Amino acid sequence: DVYFWEAKGQTPLFPRIYGHEAGGIVESVGPGVTDLQPGDHVLPVFTGECGDCRHCKSEESNMCDLLRINTDRGVMLTDGKSRFSINGKPIYHFLGGSTFSEYTVCHIGTVAKINPAAPLDKVCILSCGISTGLGAALNVAKPQKGHSVAVFGLGAVGLAAAEGARLSGASRIIGVDLNPSRFKEAKKFGVTELINPKDHDKPVQQVIIEMTDGGVDRSIECTGNVQAMISAFECVHDGWGVAVLVGVPSKDDVFKTHPMNLLNERTLKGTFFGNYKPRTDLPGVVEKYMNKELEVEKFITHS
Amino acid sequence: DVYFWEAKGQTPLFPRIYGHEAGGIVESVGPGVTDLQPGDHVLPVFTGECGDCRHCKSEESNMCDLLRINTDRGVMLTDGKSRFSINGKPIYHFLGGSTFSEYTVCHIGTVAKINPAAPLDKVCILSCGISTGLGAALNVAKPQKGHSVAVFGLGAVGLAAAEGARLSGASRIIGVDLNPSRFKEAKKFGVTELINPKDHDKPVQQVIIEMTDGGVDRSIECTGNVQAMISAFECVHDGWGVAVLVGVPSKDDVFKTHPMNLLNERTLKGTFFGNYKPRTDLPGVVEKYMNKELEVEKFITHS
Repeated sequence: DVYFWEAKGQTPLFPRIYGHEAGGIVESVGPGVTDLQPGDHVLPVFTGECGDCRHCKSEESNMCDLLRINTDRGVMLTDGKSRFSINGKPIYHFLGGSTFSEYTVCHIGTVAKINPAAPLDKVCILSCGISTGLGAALNVAKPQKGHSVAVFGLGAVGLAAAEGARLSGASRIIGVDLNPSRFKEAKKFGVTELINPKDHDKPVQQVIIEMTDGGVDRSIECTGNVQAMISAFECVHDGWGVAVLVGVPSKDDVFKTHPMNLLNERTLKGTFFGNYKPRTDLPGVVEKYMNKELEVEKFITHS
Repeated sequence: DVYFWEAKGQTPLFPRIYGHEAGGIVESVGPGVTDLQPGDHVLPVFTGECGDCRHCKSEESNMCDLLRINTDRGVMLTDGKSRFSINGKPIYHFLGGSTFSEYTVCHIGTVAKINPAAPLDKVCILSCGISTGLGAALNVAKPQKGHSVAVFGLGAVGLAAAEGARLSGASRIIGVDLNPSRFKEAKKFGVTELINPKDHDKPVQQVIIEMTDGGVDRSIECTGNVQAMISAFECVHDGWGVAVLVGVPSKDDVFKTHPMNLLNERTLKGTFFGNYKPRTDLPGVVEKYMNKELEVEKFITHS
C-alpha cells in the first residue's frame, strides 16, 4: 500500500482509501447478490473471480478478465462510480478493497466467504501475501516429497513459499536472502539452509548447483528482483527442474538467459496470487489453517 | 550431419563416420548384453538411456547422465576406443550411431528394440527429428482438444509437432514460416493457417495474439532462432499458455523477455528429443505408426 501511495511511476486517483488485506463481516448486500448475506464472514481480495470469463472457467488460470488486479481503477465496475465521498466529492477505491476503513464496499467477485469460526484477525493475512507464497509452492512449483527447494527472498511471501514446500514434504529448503538475520525466523518455516549471495564470489545459482549436485528440484522467487529471477531459474536441475516467479518486476526489467538452459528441460513459469481463485479456493486455505495443517500464527509478528 | 561435418565452432574428432537416424537389425551382441539378440529389429538413437542414472529413473527426464547426446565423443564409453579402423588407424564414431555405414557398433543404451513387422526404411525417421517434434507436442506442450497451437518452423521437426497437435485434437494449428511454399505441404499435417512474419509490419507474436483473441493455448518453436523462441513464448495466452522450445540455439544467443510475461501465468519450457526415453518410449512411437495413428509416410519425400 505504501508503494501505491507513493505512486512512483503510476497515475492513481486521489484521494483514495488504501488497504488490500483484510477479514470482515458482511453488513449488507446490494441488489442481485445471492451468494452472500449479512453476517457472513469474508476475506476481501485484491483480485477477483467473476465466474464467467474464460480465465474463471479454466482450471489453470485465476486471472479473471473482469476483476483481475487493477491498481489504477478507483471506482466500482457496475456504474463507474465510487462508493465513498467526503463533502460531496468522491474518495476513490483501491484494488477492489479499500480495507483501511471500518466499512467498505466491494464487488461480490472479490469477496471470499469463509468459515465463520475462523479468527478474522489471523486469517486476514490469507487474503494476499501468505496465499501468494503458499500457492506458488502448492499449486505451481508442486515439490514432491524429498525434493530440494530454493526460496529466493525470505519476506512474508517467501516464508509462505517455504511453508508450502515444508507442507509438501521437501527435504531441503534453501533460503536465499541478503539479510542473514532472517535465518533464525526462517527455520520455523522449514528452511534448512541459508545462502547469503554476498558471502560468495560466484553467482548464487552456481553455489546452489554445487550444493545440490546439479541444482534444486524446484525454486521459487519472491523478491521482484530480476537478477534473483534469473538465478532462481538457472539454479534448477536440468531434466526436471521447475522455477516459479512470484515477485513483481519493475517495468523496465528484462529476464535474460541462454536458451540452452530451457532446452535442457527446465521449466519456467510465473504465478499470480499463488494461482488461487479467490472465491473458489480461499475458503479451503482457511480450512487448512482450521485443521492445524497451515500455521498462520508464526507469520504474525505483532497485532 | 552436414552441420557437424562442417564442424563450425566445434572440435570433433576426424576421421569419423557420420549418420544419426537409422533402422537396423542386430547382427551380434557383446558380452553382458541380455536385452537384445541377433535378428532383433532396432532403431539406433543419437542419445541414450542407461536406465540407472537419476534422469533415467525420473519420469520427467530423458537426459541420461551417461549417454546423453555428446557430439564430441568419438569412442565407445566402455573402453574409450573406437570400433572402426582403416589401415590400423581409428575412425571415430558419431553420436553413438555412425549409421552412414552398413554395419555399425552401438552402446546397448542407445538402441531401441522395436516391432520386427515395422518397415525399417520408414520408421528409421522416428529415431530423431520426427519423434522430437511429435514428443514436443504430445509429451510437453500437451494441447487439449479444441486448443489453438502455433508451430514455428515447418521443417520436418515442426511438421511433426503439427502432427502431434493434430493427434491431440487441436482445432487451430497456426504454422509460422518465412517460406510460403511450405504451406501446401503443411496442410497434410493439420496446419490450418500460415503466417509469414515477412508479411507483417508488427512482431509475429502480436499478429498471433490478435488472430486468437489473446494468444494461442500452446506454441512449439522448431527453428533454433532465438527471435522465434521469444515470439513463440510471447504469443501464448496469459493464464494458461505453454510455450515449448525445441530448436537448438547458437551458443551466443540470449533469450530475453519482460518478466511480467511470466508473472501473467505463462509457462516456458524446453525439450530434448521430445522428452522420449529412447529405449522405453520409441517402441511405442513405432506402434503408433503400426496402428495407423501416426502417418509416417507423409514425412518421406523421396527414398
